[in-house]
Amino acid sequence: MSDKKVTDSRAGLSSIRLEDLEDFVRGAALLGAGGGGDPYVGRLILERELERGGQANILDIDQLADDALIVSVCVMGAPTVMIEKVPSVTALENALRQMEQRLGRRADALIPLEIGGINSTVPLVLGTRLGLPIVNADGMGRAFPELQMVTFGIYGTSMSPLIVCSERGDSVEINALSNLSGERLARSITSEMGGAAHVALYSMTGAETKTRSIRGTLSVALDTGRAIRSARLSGQRPTEALFDALSLLAEPRSGRVLFSGKVMDVQRNIRGGFSVGEVTIDRDTESSDRVRVDFQNEFLVAYRGDTAIASTPDIIAVLDEDTGEPITSDALKFGQRVQLVGISVPELMRTPEALTVVGPRAFNINMDYRPLEFEQQSPVSLPI
Amino acid sequence: MSDKKVTDSRAGLSSIRLEDLEDFVRGAALLGAGGGGDPYVGRLILERELERGGQANILDIDQLADDALIVSVCVMGAPTVMIEKVPSVTALENALRQMEQRLGRRADALIPLEIGGINSTVPLVLGTRLGLPIVNADGMGRAFPELQMVTFGIYGTSMSPLIVCSERGDSVEINALSNLSGERLARSITSEMGGAAHVALYSMTGAETKTRSIRGTLSVALDTGRAIRSARLSGQRPTEALFDALSLLAEPRSGRVLFSGKVMDVQRNIRGGFSVGEVTIDRDTESSDRVRVDFQNEFLVAYRGDTAIASTPDIIAVLDEDTGEPITSDALKFGQRVQLVGISVPELMRTPEALTVVGPRAFNINMDYRPLEFEQQSPVSLPI
Repeated sequence: MSDKKVTDSRAGLSSIRLEDLEDFVRGAALLGAGGGGDPYVGRLILERELERGGQANILDIDQLADDALIVSVCVMGAPTVMIEKVPSVTALENALRQMEQRLGRRADALIPLEIGGINSTVPLVLGTRLGLPIVNADGMGRAFPELQMVTFGIYGTSMSPLIVCSERGDSVEINALSNLSGERLARSITSEMGGAAHVALYSMTGAETKTRSIRGTLSVALDTGRAIRSARLSGQRPTEALFDALSLLAEPRSGRVLFSGKVMDVQRNIRGGFSVGEVTIDRDTESSDRVRVDFQNEFLVAYRGDTAIASTPDIIAVLDEDTGEPITSDALKFGQRVQLVGISVPELMRTPEALTVVGPRAFNINMDYRPLEFEQQSPVSLPI
Repeated sequence: MSDKKVTDSRAGLSSIRLEDLEDFVRGAALLGAGGGGDPYVGRLILERELERGGQANILDIDQLADDALIVSVCVMGAPTVMIEKVPSVTALENALRQMEQRLGRRADALIPLEIGGINSTVPLVLGTRLGLPIVNADGMGRAFPELQMVTFGIYGTSMSPLIVCSERGDSVEINALSNLSGERLARSITSEMGGAAHVALYSMTGAETKTRSIRGTLSVALDTGRAIRSARLSGQRPTEALFDALSLLAEPRSGRVLFSGKVMDVQRNIRGGFSVGEVTIDRDTESSDRVRVDFQNEFLVAYRGDTAIASTPDIIAVLDEDTGEPITSDALKFGQRVQLVGISVPELMRTPEALTVVGPRAFNINMDYRPLEFEQQSPVSLPI
């Protein structure tokens, strides 16, 4: 596989540079759908790697040789823990090296598990440290709370062998019968490791990567994050600039403001390692028009009255009304003026196979998925 | 390493036969100190292997070549779960095979982790199935609740790599920085696997095995179990016959009746995967003379009034007063007439290094260990 350094061109994104980071992590926070951990922590460690002279070299998915070995790396744990425990690059490297040892060959490139939140930067950090390219694609096109909620697995790649490393130096190799059982075993180990762990998983060939990934998502993060910042400078509404950027993507997405209002109520619990709860947003204090958004790390379903107006796997994001800055479910506070935004996901996340793993019922929500584009905003009034 | 079959001789135990099983598991239950899981379940699966024509070939520890590879296998979980989930020989074999693959060579013999309870038979079952000899020794000389409470580890062998397999087919390899952290990781995986798992661990050389094991303990189980049965037939008191047998061992042990009475009260909870509680035994209903025994799976300390009359690592066992049959902490019931018995453990379990790992303070009991032989039965009266 070629790893020659090419400069930016219309052919695609070739690197993430220091000056891109602010936009990139903003876009990653947006695609994180309220979860995925704090991408600003990931920014700090990536900044350090780039300032030391490392390069985050990005490969277009079509540049991968069919027989190349691609490995995904991520950190795992409750976002609230992850904020306190900064990911260890050494532990990530340990996880990758043990995977390579297990497979008997070196990885040719890394691929993000998810583009949302902190795990968008984790493979960039490790790739920069090791001089390994990072594929411009991921397995979710957003963030999800569990390791099996990934297109790689949905379309046939085994999560196992799965290497889980603590920052202390403990390591565990899981070979699970199913990806769901791999997730459960890794989750219990993560909890025993203090709530956060470093993981290498979903090793696959270049050929598999091409058909089982959401393409171009590093670019999506960068483009959407940049659009929001540009809007601030030009006085455009951030959401307008965002939707324009989404419509200009190689694979265009639809986006729409689902609701605008003020955060009135947040209920949040740590349950089974997840941050679980709901947020209520009111149109204004005199109105009875409100939405409720349920989350498990990520925002899963938005209800206006009894009607679901958006649901997983489509992206539901909460943006600061003035700045367009994404707000994670952990950062929601009473009184914030926000816009609730829906963004469609690519078809690969909307097939029947995918919906079994990432649709509402995968989160024990008893409803069918309806694509964001087909939902009508029914103006239902709720009793206060 | 020689694996020629030799017949029983004064040289030592050369096999465990079908007709030995009843005595063997009785002795294993006794050495289980109230825990270690139900050895009668282990008996059933070993019986099946022997009836199919398999042989449980026993090796004296001095027959081991110094460069032989010895591996320990066990089942892990709360005894109450283990009764419902019969150990899977296939999952045990998977654990051993993965260990062998990891180490790049075949095991020459198996060694029990503990001689108490179900794990006394587990290596016999697997060795019989695979035609592998089992070393006449173990790592505890009794049962203990945790994987690091083993002489192999106390004297320098790493528990890792540690292979944990479910009966479904999931498997996990742990490489832990310390044996304590290996135990914790394995415990959380066991819980995720449904409360019981099959484990291969503590791989070591023949030379290491010779200095880090409690010797001859398969014989101890067989001899003590046989003594109790013989006593019933001859009308001797079972405890007398037991103490005689202990004094005739190659490495003689002291044993003593600590108390006789009736089970008055049992408090028992499942906590962190362990069966934790206390039992109170009264001399008789008119008397205020009573003992309390605290347990975590195994009986840990016996108190008469405020005075500890025996404590871990010495073996505390509860025997049916008439038959001498050992009663596990999970099988204690109101009204049972019992004898509380103390049995000393070999010096290897009583060194300062060993007491750090298996003495009272290792169980958060704030007292110094005093060898059973030095404890005085102080006739303290307690207010009722």
